[in-house]
Amino acid sequence: MSSKVKELTQRINQYLDDIETVKEPRELYLPVEYCLGNGGKRIRPLMALMACDMFDGKIEDALPPAVGMEIFHNFTLMHDDIMDEAPLRRGKPSVYKKWNSNTAILSGDVMFGMAVKHISETPSQYLKPVLDLFNQTVLEVCEGQQYDMNFETLDKVSEEQYINMIRLKTAVLPAACLKIGGIVAGASPKEADMIYDFGQNVGIAFQIKDDWLDIFGDEKTFGKKTGGDIIANKKTWLYVKSFELADQNQLRDLRNAFTNRIFNPEEKINMVKNVYLQLGLDKKAIVKMESFNKKAFKLLENITVSAKNKEYLKKLAENLLTRKI
Amino acid sequence: MSSKVKELTQRINQYLDDIETVKEPRELYLPVEYCLGNGGKRIRPLMALMACDMFDGKIEDALPPAVGMEIFHNFTLMHDDIMDEAPLRRGKPSVYKKWNSNTAILSGDVMFGMAVKHISETPSQYLKPVLDLFNQTVLEVCEGQQYDMNFETLDKVSEEQYINMIRLKTAVLPAACLKIGGIVAGASPKEADMIYDFGQNVGIAFQIKDDWLDIFGDEKTFGKKTGGDIIANKKTWLYVKSFELADQNQLRDLRNAFTNRIFNPEEKINMVKNVYLQLGLDKKAIVKMESFNKKAFKLLENITVSAKNKEYLKKLAENLLTRKI
Repeated sequence: MSSKVKELTQRINQYLDDIETVKEPRELYLPVEYCLGNGGKRIRPLMALMACDMFDGKIEDALPPAVGMEIFHNFTLMHDDIMDEAPLRRGKPSVYKKWNSNTAILSGDVMFGMAVKHISETPSQYLKPVLDLFNQTVLEVCEGQQYDMNFETLDKVSEEQYINMIRLKTAVLPAACLKIGGIVAGASPKEADMIYDFGQNVGIAFQIKDDWLDIFGDEKTFGKKTGGDIIANKKTWLYVKSFELADQNQLRDLRNAFTNRIFNPEEKINMVKNVYLQLGLDKKAIVKMESFNKKAFKLLENITVSAKNKEYLKKLAENLLTRKI
Repeated sequence: MSSKVKELTQRINQYLDDIETVKEPRELYLPVEYCLGNGGKRIRPLMALMACDMFDGKIEDALPPAVGMEIFHNFTLMHDDIMDEAPLRRGKPSVYKKWNSNTAILSGDVMFGMAVKHISETPSQYLKPVLDLFNQTVLEVCEGQQYDMNFETLDKVSEEQYINMIRLKTAVLPAACLKIGGIVAGASPKEADMIYDFGQNVGIAFQIKDDWLDIFGDEKTFGKKTGGDIIANKKTWLYVKSFELADQNQLRDLRNAFTNRIFNPEEKINMVKNVYLQLGLDKKAIVKMESFNKKAFKLLENITVSAKNKEYLKKLAENLLTRKI
């Protein structure tokens, strides 16, 4: 981690530490502390600060909304974990598992309130555009989660539908963080939009890589068993594309695997993975990812600040995409 | 209903009708439409508009945040109904019953986002103080709901704890609505605080009356069976006071009833109601209510606008408190 990244991460963590959460009633605020203190790489607020820095803004102007976005992100995780019945979050029990659903609902709600509170601390001349962007993002993130849940019961999801879902569910939030950094640094609306689009493209590329890692990642490096998405019948880019490209025999294999007629997990993973490999989806996913990647870096290139100023953001995006975990 | 109240209610409903909710995905927005369209007397936004009018402000300035508060209120109901397992809301199935918990969680979240969006439409010169008040209120309402849930598992709740809980859970929201009306009408901070305190006191009085009606209300006029709070072992003002004032025999009756050793609902209600009557709590509740009432009207009196301007707000508060349903 470069010293710049380290310094900005420390400022984010310092700001988060200073938020008063040792408040009554403890039953409400303890899960908030647990969730916000539960690690996390602070990528999203870091993106806000980096964009602010890139446009030569003042970091202290970006800190309150950046932290607001991080709290909002953690709120969505707390509620998503209930809806997705996810027992673990960053290697620890999720809030709804450690406590219960009601706790995760209400502590999540109060985190949403805290998020808006910190967004509201944006310097006054930038408050309205930041709020508007935040509000748009909130609706979109909820829409993305709904599409993701809808896909569970759908037989067929098109690539376009899938890309739109991950755009809403995962890409608009980092994109908004970047744009917020730009706004408080006084970037022009056009350049603020460009950094937003950069973020969306990186976010989509990131998610496709995520889908790829779950199946083709090295288990030792990846740190968890691969194939979890296949076991969970999750609609991923690979899933969606395989149904689009499969021939009769491959379709039969996919259907057999995903309708759970094959009960042995290893057998199921192998069956699906084989079809993916036959269709060359391991390579096609990387090509797809790189196409979003390329769009992203093209946008970054066209922003009229010095190459030196773009350095950290470029590095961050590269690291996200070349990561093996 | 006076023509003024009618006119303001129409403006609120018109504004709500104009909000675009026919959006995709339908699974997300349909429950929002259902919830916002499901009646409701729009008391809270009405209070905002009335306070604005009282301070000679422009109604159109108060409308966006007033509607934001109404949407926020409905969001809290949607989530509370999951937590409280309440099957009905305004005589219709609650969202979590009609759909499911996940739907009520996520559609509630998006409503919270919509609430902030409309709050953000407050005229710019008043935006920051309105946002700050909204953010404070959000946290307090969550705290109130948490205390209410905590009380379920507590044996003993003091009157002070109870009053603080209903203040947070139900009184700060109408109080904030009134203050928002005052802020956008340019009321002085002192007078904005006075109308806020007026609202808090009316809100607390209202809730004590609510507790009273549930047990001593006329079933025919009240429109539902009385005694529901007793059946549910709900900590109400009457419950809290009865444990404070009861002698040995009465304590035994109360404990028998509330630990559900008495299974017949009618018997249970009669047992508790008898103790309440022996302790004179039917009258004491009214005295208590009137003390908050009196404080409220004293505050309203001291606000330096004409008596004519105060008329509607006074009437509204009186109607809330003398209501039989």
